[in-house]
Amino acid sequence: MIKNSFYFNFDDENIINEYAKRVNLEHDSGEIGYYHLPDLNKKELDKILEYEKNLKGIKNIVLVGIGGSSLGVKALKMAMAQKQHTRELFFIDNVDPSVFEMVNKHINFEESLFIISSKSGNTIETISIFKCLIDIYKPADLSRNFLIITDENTTLEQYAKENNINFFNIPKNVGGRFSVLSVIGLVPLAFCGYDISLLLDGAMYCKKQYIDENDNSIISKAYHYATHRNADINVVFSYSSLLDGFNDWYVQLWAESLGKKNGYKRIGRTPVGLIGSKDQHSFLQLIMDGVKDKTITFIKVKNTNSVKIPSLNISHFKDCDFVDGLQLGELINFQCDSTKMALVQEGLSVDVIELDMIDEWHMGYLVYYYELLTSATGIMLGIDTYNQPGVEIGKRILKNMLLK
Amino acid sequence: MIKNSFYFNFDDENIINEYAKRVNLEHDSGEIGYYHLPDLNKKELDKILEYEKNLKGIKNIVLVGIGGSSLGVKALKMAMAQKQHTRELFFIDNVDPSVFEMVNKHINFEESLFIISSKSGNTIETISIFKCLIDIYKPADLSRNFLIITDENTTLEQYAKENNINFFNIPKNVGGRFSVLSVIGLVPLAFCGYDISLLLDGAMYCKKQYIDENDNSIISKAYHYATHRNADINVVFSYSSLLDGFNDWYVQLWAESLGKKNGYKRIGRTPVGLIGSKDQHSFLQLIMDGVKDKTITFIKVKNTNSVKIPSLNISHFKDCDFVDGLQLGELINFQCDSTKMALVQEGLSVDVIELDMIDEWHMGYLVYYYELLTSATGIMLGIDTYNQPGVEIGKRILKNMLLK
Repeated sequence: MIKNSFYFNFDDENIINEYAKRVNLEHDSGEIGYYHLPDLNKKELDKILEYEKNLKGIKNIVLVGIGGSSLGVKALKMAMAQKQHTRELFFIDNVDPSVFEMVNKHINFEESLFIISSKSGNTIETISIFKCLIDIYKPADLSRNFLIITDENTTLEQYAKENNINFFNIPKNVGGRFSVLSVIGLVPLAFCGYDISLLLDGAMYCKKQYIDENDNSIISKAYHYATHRNADINVVFSYSSLLDGFNDWYVQLWAESLGKKNGYKRIGRTPVGLIGSKDQHSFLQLIMDGVKDKTITFIKVKNTNSVKIPSLNISHFKDCDFVDGLQLGELINFQCDSTKMALVQEGLSVDVIELDMIDEWHMGYLVYYYELLTSATGIMLGIDTYNQPGVEIGKRILKNMLLK
Repeated sequence: MIKNSFYFNFDDENIINEYAKRVNLEHDSGEIGYYHLPDLNKKELDKILEYEKNLKGIKNIVLVGIGGSSLGVKALKMAMAQKQHTRELFFIDNVDPSVFEMVNKHINFEESLFIISSKSGNTIETISIFKCLIDIYKPADLSRNFLIITDENTTLEQYAKENNINFFNIPKNVGGRFSVLSVIGLVPLAFCGYDISLLLDGAMYCKKQYIDENDNSIISKAYHYATHRNADINVVFSYSSLLDGFNDWYVQLWAESLGKKNGYKRIGRTPVGLIGSKDQHSFLQLIMDGVKDKTITFIKVKNTNSVKIPSLNISHFKDCDFVDGLQLGELINFQCDSTKMALVQEGLSVDVIELDMIDEWHMGYLVYYYELLTSATGIMLGIDTYNQPGVEIGKRILKNMLLK
């Protein structure tokens, strides 16, 4: 289960109810696809799991994708680092040659399935790497070592068809950064033995709570972010190293969705992802004493059964003896609580999301929670949450540079 | 070599010269220790290298340390991921039980040297983990598998002496987040076969350029950060996945040094670390279209000899053909240039740091460059750059919670 507790005041219930209706309308319209991904029918899930049975002799999955095609998948893979899995999942998520070389050094081509994942089908980084892979390995039969994930009717899909490469389609109305619960995430995760059905169940539970059963706390939180002074920078402070990738996913979701021009007006909320307790020794000082422009959401995991800090009775470490007998997982949570109290006392906007554990169900919930929060905040800011016009200029400049 | 190019105007030379003098005074005073770390004499270097010869049978180094005791070391280790090394370097840099378990699963105690690194000697996380390790492995002879790095005369040093554990001392006047060029970084890196002499040479070169030879561009850059509106959030956009750890190190250095109260006034600059080209598909949209509160420093590496993108003449990928024939390392740099141009056109404060390559020399330079920039900005903001009073409150609350 997941519990969200708030340490700031909510605004006028009438306004919140109005916005809740607008979120529900956006959901009901069917235009924004991610809302409906948890409803994915069993037939589609079975198709993915069925496909997995063909992967005889495949030991590694290499996901070639950038931005929305990899950040969410990496988040889930990293979160589940301690879970059993059937195959190793690698990422080529940058055109950086070091990434390309290091992944290829670790794998054997014959034992690897490369998933070429590009929503538009012409992401320059992904297609370039795809070409390099074909050039280096010169496979006689592309279908054995490649799989394609892309929108319907892209040139990449065309290529797949003509070369007998299997492909999965992302629904057109699901944006890249909102796509981890589509085939973008489900296919590579299922191929590595993670429980994608549980992942969707968690997301569905979240959807029920906030959409169907009208728990408006998420709308109130979004309203706080959208309207309050001192809420320009939104920190997610995750008290588990397993959530490092989740933080990166959140940064993309929040920054790319909420940083927009509205006519001449520039609007934006800046995301920051931190890991506790280690970033208590880094960014925390700035939150405590720096300019009050930050909200903080703590993510806490009810850790069970971890190593216990022994009482070694070493006279020299007296200052540290007060944690003796605690498990490491208890210590990290007490640190989370004490940091939270320090920030609340300082008058900052704080809330806490507490997970029972980190598994597919809880990650599915968390992903959907943040997607909903982003949508709600975007509606209140009066922007188009789902486009990214600002990144096109750099792409055009690149093309002009090289075509000269 | 390293080249820094600026795409914003510098301020009045007289003011800059005045501040340059103040930085030089701080350097000359001898009170702030990190300035002088590149001068470390050969005898001390030899002592570290000599010690390394005793590590027979040791295959892994495990650094137990948090914040300033690990971020810089991790930055350098990650940057050198493609370099040959003699031992594997692991980190237990959080009390998160998953980190503890995963590292211990990967290593064999007998073949591992644990470096317990805590400047104060009573960092709660580090000492707790140290106790857990002793409790789990119950070594008969602590000296073989443990080494301690701490300030002179701490309780941790006392413990080392009484248990015949070898130890190295950090100079008292070198702050944690400014300590990577001290034994904090030098010892674990040297033990893994990285060239620490070259690391210090790079830092020394940087010091000569900006302190001895009075290249004032770094002071002008600091002045821009300290005084200009629209410069509250300072982005480092590193176009190499190898610099991911460097970004984290920068975030600590910048946030913890520059986020301070000055009487009732709250002062701060918020650091953000990004990786190109992948974060063009994430945070870039917010920089382009969001509120103009960000400066951007691109870090670029002259990549040589990487995989070439072939001309496969596949009709479907016409839109991506314009990069055919480029090496991946060239493409990433063109992407850096085009993104830079887009941001300059948008009127943002941009500069570019270009490294010839990523090796110990260039990393030493880069570390020292950012330390200097932080010091200069701190002087201009009128704060104590080297303390961290804000993080003490949470520690006190933790103690009170548990002693109740």
